[in-house]
Order: sequence, then C-alpha cells, then structure tokens
Amino acid sequence: MRKLAVLTGGGDCPGLNAVIRAIAKSAQGYGIEVLGIRDGFRGAVEGDFVPLALKDVSGILPRGGTILGTTNRDNPFAYQTKLNGVNQAVDRSDNVIRNFKKQGIDALLAIGGDGSLNIALKFVHKGLKVIGIPKTIDNDLMATDQTFGFQTAVDTAQEALDRLHTTAESHHRVMVLEVMGRYAGWIALYAGVAGGADVILIPEIPYNLNRVALSIQKRAKQGKKFSIIVAAEGAKPLGGEMVVERLMEGRVDPIKLGGIGAKIGHDLEEHYGMETRVTVLGHLQRGGSPNAYDRVLSTRYGAAAVDAALEGEFGIMVALQGREIVRVPLQEAVNQIKLVPLNDPLLLAARTLGMELGD
Amino acid sequence: MRKLAVLTGGGDCPGLNAVIRAIAKSAQGYGIEVLGIRDGFRGAVEGDFVPLALKDVSGILPRGGTILGTTNRDNPFAYQTKLNGVNQAVDRSDNVIRNFKKQGIDALLAIGGDGSLNIALKFVHKGLKVIGIPKTIDNDLMATDQTFGFQTAVDTAQEALDRLHTTAESHHRVMVLEVMGRYAGWIALYAGVAGGADVILIPEIPYNLNRVALSIQKRAKQGKKFSIIVAAEGAKPLGGEMVVERLMEGRVDPIKLGGIGAKIGHDLEEHYGMETRVTVLGHLQRGGSPNAYDRVLSTRYGAAAVDAALEGEFGIMVALQGREIVRVPLQEAVNQIKLVPLNDPLLLAARTLGMELGD
Amino acid sequence: MRKLAVLTGGGDCPGLNAVIRAIAKSAQGYGIEVLGIRDGFRGAVEGDFVPLALKDVSGILPRGGTILGTTNRDNPFAYQTKLNGVNQAVDRSDNVIRNFKKQGIDALLAIGGDGSLNIALKFVHKGLKVIGIPKTIDNDLMATDQTFGFQTAVDTAQEALDRLHTTAESHHRVMVLEVMGRYAGWIALYAGVAGGADVILIPEIPYNLNRVALSIQKRAKQGKKFSIIVAAEGAKPLGGEMVVERLMEGRVDPIKLGGIGAKIGHDLEEHYGMETRVTVLGHLQRGGSPNAYDRVLSTRYGAAAVDAALEGEFGIMVALQGREIVRVPLQEAVNQIKLVPLNDPLLLAARTLGMELGD
Amino acid sequence: MRKLAVLTGGGDCPGLNAVIRAIAKSAQGYGIEVLGIRDGFRGAVEGDFVPLALKDVSGILPRGGTILGTTNRDNPFAYQTKLNGVNQAVDRSDNVIRNFKKQGIDALLAIGGDGSLNIALKFVHKGLKVIGIPKTIDNDLMATDQTFGFQTAVDTAQEALDRLHTTAESHHRVMVLEVMGRYAGWIALYAGVAGGADVILIPEIPYNLNRVALSIQKRAKQGKKFSIIVAAEGAKPLGGEMVVERLMEGRVDPIKLGGIGAKIGHDLEEHYGMETRVTVLGHLQRGGSPNAYDRVLSTRYGAAAVDAALEGEFGIMVALQGREIVRVPLQEAVNQIKLVPLNDPLLLAARTLGMELGD
Repeated sequence: MRKLAVLTGGGDCPGLNAVIRAIAKSAQGYGIEVLGIRDGFRGAVEGDFVPLALKDVSGILPRGGTILGTTNRDNPFAYQTKLNGVNQAVDRSDNVIRNFKKQGIDALLAIGGDGSLNIALKFVHKGLKVIGIPKTIDNDLMATDQTFGFQTAVDTAQEALDRLHTTAESHHRVMVLEVMGRYAGWIALYAGVAGGADVILIPEIPYNLNRVALSIQKRAKQGKKFSIIVAAEGAKPLGGEMVVERLMEGRVDPIKLGGIGAKIGHDLEEHYGMETRVTVLGHLQRGGSPNAYDRVLSTRYGAAAVDAALEGEFGIMVALQGREIVRVPLQEAVNQIKLVPLNDPLLLAARTLGMELGD
Repeated sequence: MRKLAVLTGGGDCPGLNAVIRAIAKSAQGYGIEVLGIRDGFRGAVEGDFVPLALKDVSGILPRGGTILGTTNRDNPFAYQTKLNGVNQAVDRSDNVIRNFKKQGIDALLAIGGDGSLNIALKFVHKGLKVIGIPKTIDNDLMATDQTFGFQTAVDTAQEALDRLHTTAESHHRVMVLEVMGRYAGWIALYAGVAGGADVILIPEIPYNLNRVALSIQKRAKQGKKFSIIVAAEGAKPLGGEMVVERLMEGRVDPIKLGGIGAKIGHDLEEHYGMETRVTVLGHLQRGGSPNAYDRVLSTRYGAAAVDAALEGEFGIMVALQGREIVRVPLQEAVNQIKLVPLNDPLLLAARTLGMELGD
Repeated sequence: MRKLAVLTGGGDCPGLNAVIRAIAKSAQGYGIEVLGIRDGFRGAVEGDFVPLALKDVSGILPRGGTILGTTNRDNPFAYQTKLNGVNQAVDRSDNVIRNFKKQGIDALLAIGGDGSLNIALKFVHKGLKVIGIPKTIDNDLMATDQTFGFQTAVDTAQEALDRLHTTAESHHRVMVLEVMGRYAGWIALYAGVAGGADVILIPEIPYNLNRVALSIQKRAKQGKKFSIIVAAEGAKPLGGEMVVERLMEGRVDPIKLGGIGAKIGHDLEEHYGMETRVTVLGHLQRGGSPNAYDRVLSTRYGAAAVDAALEGEFGIMVALQGREIVRVPLQEAVNQIKLVPLNDPLLLAARTLGMELGD
Repeated sequence: MRKLAVLTGGGDCPGLNAVIRAIAKSAQGYGIEVLGIRDGFRGAVEGDFVPLALKDVSGILPRGGTILGTTNRDNPFAYQTKLNGVNQAVDRSDNVIRNFKKQGIDALLAIGGDGSLNIALKFVHKGLKVIGIPKTIDNDLMATDQTFGFQTAVDTAQEALDRLHTTAESHHRVMVLEVMGRYAGWIALYAGVAGGADVILIPEIPYNLNRVALSIQKRAKQGKKFSIIVAAEGAKPLGGEMVVERLMEGRVDPIKLGGIGAKIGHDLEEHYGMETRVTVLGHLQRGGSPNAYDRVLSTRYGAAAVDAALEGEFGIMVALQGREIVRVPLQEAVNQIKLVPLNDPLLLAARTLGMELGD
C-alpha cells in the first residue's frame, strides 16, 4: 500500500473535510501518499488529481464543504460526453482505471452517499480496490448507525426551531419548518424533539391534517396560542403515496420534490383559518462548520478507512455500529434506506411527551 | 409620573424583551409602576394589562420575541368588531383612553414600527401622553441612525452566507440568499459585505441581470467557479417598478411581496445556463437571541424612554444619533423611509472591493 | 401512581431543564401530578416544594441551569444544623420521609451525579420509591453509555479550541486549554479530536513532559510553529499519583484540585523555552443551552423515568445502552467511575492521526 | 502607486484577515500589487514577504487570526540580535528601508495597536510612506470611535455571561467574570450591560468592595440569591493605584497584570462569606470568527487605507468618526488612551437600570 486516492461525491455535508484530513494524517503516519480527486468521479475520469499532504489539509477540520469539490451528477459509466456535437452518456470507466494505473494509485477511498457508493461498487466489479465511507446528511443508510453531518444538520434545524419559537409565541401563530429528509424523517424527528416542536411530520407516517389541526386547537384551549410544526420534505398527507414507493418504482425525480411545508401552511390557513408562516431550511442544513460530534465521527471514519486499506480489506464500507467502527461489504451497504421504524425509541418518547405525529 | 404602560406592536424583532426589561428596571429605580399591555393595541382596547415588576422581567434579556405578545393588525381606530354578525372596522380608540384612566396610567411607551407609531401619534392627538421607541428590523426609519434588531438580523444573514459559501464552493454553483428589506437594502448590504457576497441586489438599485451574469462569468474565468448573490426581498430588475413607489400609491400588498430570490435563480438558469440554488431566510431573521450590540441599544432605548417620561417630554420618539440617544418629535419620526443613499460609504466600499451591485 | 417529586442535585449541567420538562410533560399525559423540590435535597428536608404543571415548564427546554435550583452540599443524612449555636451534621432523613408523606408523594425522581444518587440509594434503603437519572458532565458514570450535558461540554471545549487555534497560529505559540475531567479524560479526548489539538493529556495516561515537548519541536521542524494542548483538569505528570487513587483513599479534596493547565504552561516555558498561554475553561462548560444531542438524550431520560414509575420499577436508574434507554439497579450504578480505557477506539484513532498523548 | 506592503502587529484580534482581504481586493481593482509582510515588523527587518493576490485572500474573511502572522515583540529600532553570542537590542530600521526599496514597495499599510503604530510613526520620520489602521480589541484608542474586534469580543464576553447566569441562578452563587481591558473598561461595560451583569467594575472607577457586597446582599433580600460581576482586568479597589498611572510611569509590566477576578472572588468569600466562582475569559476573547459588525468595519478600514494610498495621503491613520471613515495624523493617533468617561451615556444608562459600579 503506497498510494491512496480519495474523492467526495454527492451533496455537500458537514464533516467532509474532517474525513479528508483524517485520511491524510493517518496515511502520513503510515508513510502512505494520498492524492485527492477533484469534483468526485469527474476528476477520476479526467485525471484531475491534487496532492493531499499534511500542509494541504492544515486548518480544514472546522470548515464546511469539501476542499476537493463534489458533484452529484458525473457517473463514469454514463459520462456526459459531446460526440459529433451531441451530448451522449458514454461509458468512460476505463479512463478511471487507466488514470489510476498511470498515477500508481493502489486503492480508492470513496466518500459518498448511495449514488457514489453504487458507482464505487461497479468499480469493485472492474477490479478496483475500493473502500467506501458513508455520507448522507439524512442518516438514512441502513448499514451504519449514524452518518456524519446528521447531528450538525439536527443542530441547525433545532436552532431554527428555537428562533421560530419566539416569533410564534409573540404572534400567536402556527409556524411550519420544512427540513431535509426525502425518504426518512430522522432530521425532523430529532430536531423536532430537540426544538420542542408540537407536531412532527415524517414520510414514514402519512399525516391526517385534521389530527394536526385538532392538536393545535387543543393547545389553544390550554392557553398556548401558538404551535410549531416540523415537517420532513418527504412528509405526505394520508392517502398520498409514500415518496419512497414512487422512488423505488422510478416514478419521481428526487430533485423536483419538496414544497410540503408550503402545502401544510396553505391547508391550515384555507381549511382551518389558522394564521401560518412557513420556513424552508434548505441548503442551510448542508453548510457550516461540523459540530464536535460530527468532527469526531468523521475523523474516526477517515482513520478507519486508512486502517482497512493498510490491512488489505477492500470492497467494504466503514460503518458505525454501537461504539465501534466496523467493516461491511459495500454490496450490502448500498440501496437500503433506513426508515424511522414505528417503534423507534425516540418516536415513542415523542408520543409519551404528547407530541402530535399526525396519525 | 406614577404609572407607565408599555406595548410592543408590529413584527417580531430581536431586542423587544431587552427594551421591556430596561423600562421595568429603570422605572423601578424611580419608584414608577409599569403595566404591560398584551398583544399590542389589542390589549389597549380590551383592557388586557399585566404587571411588569422586576420579577416579571427577570431572565428575559437574552430571549427573542416579546413577553407581551404583539400583532401587526389591530388598530384601535379601525378595530375589527363583529356587529350584527358582520365584521366591521370600528373606532375603538376611546376604549383605550378609558382603560388607561381606569388603570391610572400616566403615559404610554409604544415600541413599534411605522404602523404602530402612526397609531401612537393619533393617540397623541387625542391627548394621550406617548413616547415612541423605534422598532424595525430593516433599519429603514429616517429619524434614527439605527434600530435594534438590525445588527442581529445582519449576523443571522451573514452566518447563512457563510454556510452557503462552503456549499457553493464545493459544488461550483451560484447560490442566492433572499433577505429582508422590502423598501431599503440595509440588511442585504451589510450582510453582503460581512458575508463576502459577490453580488448584492437592493431595492434602491434596480438590477440589470446581464451585468450580474457577466460578473459571475468573469469570476469563473478567474478560476472562481461559484458565486454568492444576496438579494433584498424588495430588489427589482431594471425596468421593474420600485416597490416603494407602488407602496406609496397603495398598489401593493406588502404581505404578498417576495419571491425575488426565486426569480433571480430561475432567470440565471433559464437565460444563462447557470446552476443556481435559492434560499429564503424569512422568519429566521426575526427570532433568536439579540446579539450584544442590540441588547445594548435596546437597553439604552428603554432607559431613555423612562428618562423622557420622568422629565415630562411626550409626543416624542427616542432615537440614536451618533453616540447619543436623543428625542425627536413623533410627528417627524414616522412615514419617512430611510433608503440606502447611492453615496453611502459602505456601498462605495463594496464597489471598491469589486462587488457587483447590478447596475 | 398519582404524584411524583423531582429534584436536581450536584453541579449545573446542560440538559437539566430538558429532563424536568420531559418528566412534567410525560407525567401530565398519564394524569400524574409532579412536584418540584427546590435546591436538591435541601428542599426535601425543608419541605420546599413547587408545582410542576405544563405551564411551569413552558419554554425551559433551551435553557441552561435548572429551574429547581441545585446544590452540591446538602445531605439529609448529615444535614448541617445549628444546635445550641454550633453547626453540626445531623441525620434529617426522616424529615424527608415525613414531608413526602404529607404531600402524598408516591415516588422520587432524583436527577444527579454520584453524590446525589448515593443519597438517593440510602433513601431506597429507608423504603422510599426512587428512580435515578444520571447526571455528570464528565461522562464518567459506569452504568450508562452517555450522560446528558457531555456533548454540549465537548462542543464548548471544541469551540474554545477553534478560537485558540487562530491565535496560536498567528502568534506561533503553544496554547494550553484546561477542560473538565477530574478522574476521566472524556471531555479532553473528544474535544481534543474535534478541535484538532496536537496534544491531549488525560488522567488515565500520566504524561511525560519531555514527550510533549518533543512532539511540539517535531511540529516546528515541519513548519508548524504553533501547537495546541488540551489537558483534563485531572491530568498528571508521570510519577505523580493518579487523582482517582488519591480520591478513593480520601486523601484529596475534589474542590481544591485543578491548576494542571498552569503547571504545564509554566513547565514548558521554564524547561523548554516555549512561549505558552493557558486558558482554563471552567464554568463555561456547565452553562448555556444544551445542544440538540443533549436535548434529545435528556428528553428520553425524563420520559423513561416516568415510564418506569408508571410500571412500578423503583430502586433503579435509567441508563443509555446502545440506542435503548434501559433500567439498571441504582446499587450498581453508583460508585463506579468509567475511565477512558487504553484501547478506547477514539483514543486509538487519535494515535493513528499522530496526536501526542504524552506517553 | 504600484506596490503596497501590509503587516499585522500586536495581539491577535478578530477582523485582521478581513482587513487584509479588503486591502488585497481593493488594490487589485486599482491595479496595485500587494505584498504581505510575515510576523509584523520581524518580516520587514528580515525581508520575509509573501504575495497577496486575490487567490491568497480567498476564504479568509470569516477566519480569526491573521494569515500574515503577528508578534508583539519585534521592534526594528531595538531589534533583538545575537552579537558575539550575546542578545542585544540593535537598530535595524535601515534594513526595513532597504528591503522595501529592493521590493519596490511604495508604501506600508500597518495594521496594529499603539505599539505597532508608534514604530510605524518612527518610519514616517525616516521617510517611509505609511498608513496606519487601528487595531485594539480594548477599543481604547482616542482617535477612532471604534476599533474592529471590539464588538466580537463583547459578543464573546456576553455569551460567557449568559452561560454563567444559568449556573449562578441554579446554585445561588456569586459568579465573577474577568474580561480584557487593562486601562479602559469598554468591554466590561458593554458586555456587562448586554449580559445583564449586576455589578460592573472598570479601571476608571476604583471599586469599594463594601458597596459591591451591599448590592449583592440587597438583591438577596429581594429574592435574587445570585449575582453576576463582570470585572475588567485593570479594575482596582479604592485606594489601589490606577493601572494606567503606573503604566504611564513605567512601573508596571503589562504582561504580568491580571488576576483581579481572583482577588474579588477571594475577598467576597473571605470578608463577606459569599460563595463565589471566578472565570477568566482571557484569550477566548481574541480568537474566533469576527461578527458581522467587525467584518464590515474591517472591510471599510482596508478599503479606506487603499483609497488613501491611491490619493497619496501618508503619515495618517484611517479612523471611524460617526458613520464616516476619516484620516487623522498618525502623530495624533498614538499614545492617547480613550478611557470610559464618567458621563458616558451607556455608563449612565447602567446606573439608571440599577447596576452597581462599585462607587
């Protein structure tokens, strides 16, 4: 093991730089050289590499984003290429293999979500030595207890709820906060409990708007003339289809989703005459400095990936299970979304506290 | 001077509680009793008062919102009243005078923006002793150098720009942040400079989208493949009408405004093929704990208002001019919006730094 | 189960109010009344109770401290009492039993650390129905995976390291940050990794100053003319006794400990000529709003304690094990300090990254 | 004007990087080249320059510290030099002139406090074209209304007071926070008002401990069993000498000062039996990201300094007066400490609110 390459793929996520730094520092301790690949798999196809020595990762631990750049589009197996003036998807995966050989790269550390790890898996089948590092701010990857970036996103959403709380209370209003979570409601659930939301709406539990309105009215009768609703972007009214089902059948473009916050606000005003204001947190959840929890987790992932490379274990993904970082087959890691189970302990605690879940 | 009443009117704003606390603490030192009026002028009409002794304001300094509640609707001179089953606007201002007499209230301290201070002025004409305390998060009130809440809103917008910056950089994208500022671009200007925005669009300078796009392309040529745009909600394309003009002529409903961020994002994608993401900061700018600057300013306003009452000066508003809190006639204070002048020193500094202002 | 009493004992810790709120809200859902006991066991002896209805816990979730007050002194079994003008320690535990009977209290929920839970255990032996909720900001309680307040303290310490980092780098200095952790180095270890410290000194690993100085000099040779040291307050030089041993034998007053940061700074200047600055974080780690992680954990503890009471399980402590809140005998929970094991995964990761641990 | 050099001298201060960035960006717009000098005047003597093009200042706006390095020791007019094995102070100012000539530097922009600006002034007398930019976190420079970094330090101190408040309240204790301010009490005054301190002790008002204790006891009688004291590091008991006098006469080493917080804590426990805890904020006030206010001010200073250079005005310092950045003779700018006047409006407001100032 003499030379590793690392890339970051998919959406921005707090902790990416912390993983990159941990890889560079750990590798340096073992005398392994590290190359960075720019803009995810685009750089692997184009041969766009940068050195990642100690000085290159100095000071990046607290910074959001990724110094390597990222993209959630370029797939070497269907690479957008202009042929005879027309854009076509061409298999350029051999370029990647060739570029790696030319650079003398022994193995690839791929930091990414479902999409990037699926591509990584295809390269495993092409003979590349690959180690995956799970990245999804939504925390909805089955193979790992927690992904980095999630706790920071929860902090961000909770701080937003704290802010909205004072306004809601002063104005006797209903405030809706739409947070990330297309398929799974982890951010909404954790931020909702942490921010003291009165209603939490997640994709796993299609909501009955009448129940929501009743719980707001019940609070008003107790003298609480305001309510806070936190809704995952994938939340759906009862009778609407679960987003995850439509996704599995390829009937929905994940980029075009969203807007459930606006719908809830509109419906509460229209059907129940409740003065409502809606805030969509959006990209604010992706940026910014990772919190201590995520910096620790990111650092552990990075160190564990280098350890795995050193021990010659490839085709795997590092994952958190309990307090340990373990290795799971990359094959098993992808394509399995971890939904909030209906008996999740935090979900049950939320019910015990009297929070409305819309069912 | 034995008994003061205080109310908060208009939209939520960081520092309201700090003003209320300063009034209660200062008054207590002078042996003056303070009553709080609930929900702005609604409580004045309905006779909804609460005591504001030291213990009632204990611990509220860091808290956003207002412990008194607020509203931006109820006007005693056109009070929504159900008569014979029909909602009508009725002059209930005499109720206020009567309630004040009944409670033995000597003077009213009204913390509010343009709308609330206008109502306060009408009560001056009815013989009430009134002192105004200026509140507008947009900092667009002519009579005072600065209103409380503004610097906190700028901090919030700047932190959002910091977050978006890492994502923009990692993804090589254009990110648009829409901030408050219907008529005046103060928040956009200050947050834009503080957050290192590349483009700042304010209502005072109708923007030429082509100029904006050119400056983004120029950056790209210099190797900066991302750009950050901050836009006040009142920003307008060249040729569009200034919002403030439409407002003055009563042709626009201020509640329905907004959406300029989405328009800019759409236009840049559509006409210039730039991948763009839009975030609307919205109510997040109103809530949360005031920063130190605003706590100090709020505290000074509160103490100065009690001093004015003690010295028998009414029909005035307290205002910051330079380092001093002065008193200005309430008559002069309202109805004058302070726009960003084209020779504003910070605007010129922004140009010196190469920021694009769209003109 | 009709009436519960709750007290907070020992030092301030972020999340206490979140636990109290969760207890009050959960109990209300089950129709159980809750009384708060003021100032820990003092209020139990003196009969100082306050109601904890929904309105009493409204808005306390984000607030640091405890609305009930706390103390780390009053022990009902050796209660400081003035007898014949002389202060004596008198057993007043029967007062507690009597006061509980008088109030019709069915069970006690005691939120506290080792000291308070030990007292709680003695009351179990006197026949009181007790449920313990673990509280130690140091995270050094054996029976639970994590205590609330710890992650917030780690955030605080990491933010301090971020601040010191820029100063250290600008001035080419060694900066020492002393954090909490008398017996166990959890805060130092987690904050050190999260804050990118170069040296982490914990009580479990007596440090060799020469090793520390060598690692700083090695960095300087690599062009890094600054270094950051984070030291737990219980850190000890090699040859010095482990604090925990002295404590177990009663030879040390835990209140008087501290000052290791100053010693390290002095020794580095004196013996190695390194310009050093020392910061003691102290009480700043205890105050402030709990982060989202700790609010969730606190809320779960509170809800789980009410569930246990409802199911009639007493003499136990609620504890986090993996993702579940479980019940452990109070007897087993106290008196066992959880030190950082030498094979702790994060400790090993810190070594992999090249952090100096002083051994 | 073709080439400018910029250096940062003296202690770390939030906003230094923002000034450097503004200089580089403004100069670039005018086609002027900028060189950075490393580690203050050390780099000027040693000829240690680095380019400051746009890419070198990219992303530094939010970062604390200074990318150029700084020192508060090296004085070219008395430069520590080893001659014949002995350290001596030698006049090396000609080296600076020579290095500037060699590099073709037209003018120096010196960002620094009293010490650095005094050295800069001596270079003016040697014929160098110099523009000063005022830097003192204490805000105690006479010639300017406000220095950058001050508002961020006030934010930091206020946040610390917020944290200590919850602990003080929960434990019924006196908490003392020692903040910066050797000669002037600006930080203590502003943070004290913003953080709701009960007692504010500043160097300008020697304190009578008996008055302090009485005010704490008075609060206790009103049911407030805790109190918060904020003390500037230069605060002095009545009868003690003013630090500023001792300094002017050269009888005190400013580095060795401090410890007044510990003294106040000790005295309150010893003489008044009050349980007290002390926190020294220290270097935490210097580091970290500047707030929006300071980023704006820093940016304006940097742009204004380049404007002055362009217009050929040297031997001056840029300064804030009201809303304008003006130019004042460097001669007048140094050596004049701006103390808190006894009729300062905020000081009077603090008295109106009932805050104890110790006199």
